[in-house]
Amino acid sequence: MLDTVIIGAGPAGMTAGIYAARAELSHIVLESGLMSGGQIVNTSEVDNYPGLKGTGGFDLAMKFREHCDLCGVSFRDGKVTEVKKQENGFLVLLESGESYSAKTVLFATGAKHRTLSIPGEEEFAGSGVSYCATCDGAFFRGKEVAVVGGGDVAIEDALFLARICKRVYLVHRREEFRAAKTLVNRLRACENVTFVLNATPVRITGTGRVESLCVKTAEGERELPVSGVFVAIGMLPNTELLTGLVPLDEAGYVLAGEDCRTGVPGIFAAGDLRTKHLRQVVTAAADGAAAIYEIEAFLNQQ
Amino acid sequence: MLDTVIIGAGPAGMTAGIYAARAELSHIVLESGLMSGGQIVNTSEVDNYPGLKGTGGFDLAMKFREHCDLCGVSFRDGKVTEVKKQENGFLVLLESGESYSAKTVLFATGAKHRTLSIPGEEEFAGSGVSYCATCDGAFFRGKEVAVVGGGDVAIEDALFLARICKRVYLVHRREEFRAAKTLVNRLRACENVTFVLNATPVRITGTGRVESLCVKTAEGERELPVSGVFVAIGMLPNTELLTGLVPLDEAGYVLAGEDCRTGVPGIFAAGDLRTKHLRQVVTAAADGAAAIYEIEAFLNQQ
Repeated sequence: MLDTVIIGAGPAGMTAGIYAARAELSHIVLESGLMSGGQIVNTSEVDNYPGLKGTGGFDLAMKFREHCDLCGVSFRDGKVTEVKKQENGFLVLLESGESYSAKTVLFATGAKHRTLSIPGEEEFAGSGVSYCATCDGAFFRGKEVAVVGGGDVAIEDALFLARICKRVYLVHRREEFRAAKTLVNRLRACENVTFVLNATPVRITGTGRVESLCVKTAEGERELPVSGVFVAIGMLPNTELLTGLVPLDEAGYVLAGEDCRTGVPGIFAAGDLRTKHLRQVVTAAADGAAAIYEIEAFLNQQ
Repeated sequence: MLDTVIIGAGPAGMTAGIYAARAELSHIVLESGLMSGGQIVNTSEVDNYPGLKGTGGFDLAMKFREHCDLCGVSFRDGKVTEVKKQENGFLVLLESGESYSAKTVLFATGAKHRTLSIPGEEEFAGSGVSYCATCDGAFFRGKEVAVVGGGDVAIEDALFLARICKRVYLVHRREEFRAAKTLVNRLRACENVTFVLNATPVRITGTGRVESLCVKTAEGERELPVSGVFVAIGMLPNTELLTGLVPLDEAGYVLAGEDCRTGVPGIFAAGDLRTKHLRQVVTAAADGAAAIYEIEAFLNQQ
């Protein structure tokens, strides 16, 4: 029986692996993708992981993985189909039919951004289409960009970008906002923000990089001349395996504080899948470290 | 009036600087030491900051600082003597007589470890004397070490090291422990742990590296043949400036959750000085990012 099974090999899971290996906990890190790294693998440049400025997402993932390998982290390929409570711990079942018994399970399966699902979005992901203003906004200094969405995050992203960019178009499919009124009022006061309401994104076009976002309104189609499109229509935590196992919030995130302890003793959650305000590489990595610290404390109490 | 004054230039303060600069918040980072980095500057090797394995503490501090400089973070030298509430914000007064007005203040002044204050301790700091088992334990694989202390952290450190090291001496000045009974019982069950009770550390000796810890007991002095001494007798948060300004816990830490918001709107605390379980470079860095995110949200609400 292992001390812990870590599910997911993004920044949270790999950091947990480093801390588990250095603590000589018996462990495995299960990864379902073709390579380690989670969401950062497909990020062209990560500019805000402290100490490693301007590193490509792929390279950053490789650096985390090398660090793991040097520490003796045990990786296994496999897609988890179910985690079952059993006496003294948990049984982790894989698609391949294999299974692992462990005293604790750490979920680090991350989250994904909701997409617009329009032509050009996938093509320009990482070269003009972004899902994180905090991450990528600084690359659009002095340029024109669009933010799509009407919730708090969309308005906060637009406020953030309004300080950096020449012009920000806020594209929202309705006239009303779910976002807090104070935020919306503040955005209305920004001279370089243009509201494009009752508008639905239709396609993103350009040659090599984004040059335009086309939106559909009651008056017909309209081209917004932007070099960046920030999609802020929500995230989907990868918590399918956790439904019914631990308490989730209404959006599907695992209810867990910075100690990464879930509502069920022995099950922990680190990274983007848990309830938190800011989802970044560095906050996911911190979770991985904190989770292993708490798992050690948990095992010491058994 | 600045958007924020960041006090302290360790991993938390520098990460906050990176996030503030990228968000184009008007800011300064105040540093009182000769160089940026905080506690890590004097750490011989940091092995668990993900993505940068086996980096000297000095080099890691330099990498953070370079990252800051590339992002345009504004540093100022200066020792803060007082932070005063004033209309619409705060006044930060320096020893030099200068002062800065800011809408928010982020304290990232860190903490320091309590020391034994015995001969050899300072001499061997970083080459055998450590204040963090999670950080440095892995460097003592298969060796004999001593842990000094009787609280939860000391016992947890000893349990951690018992998995990694050949032998662990637990040195405690009393017979009873402040630590939880379950932890102590668990440690008693470890075959490679020797309890050295009613014992006071006297001196640490060696040639170039630690070779022995001498302790005084009722029966006289005793030499423990160890190559590592882990001092776990508590930490002292650097929160003198915050006393009377924001609520602290009984040990002097700033009461603040992972959103780094203190009990006073506009004052934030990131890194080792706030209440949290695990104090590491990566968790301090995560705090710096989270604090700026919250400061932006705070400014958006004004």
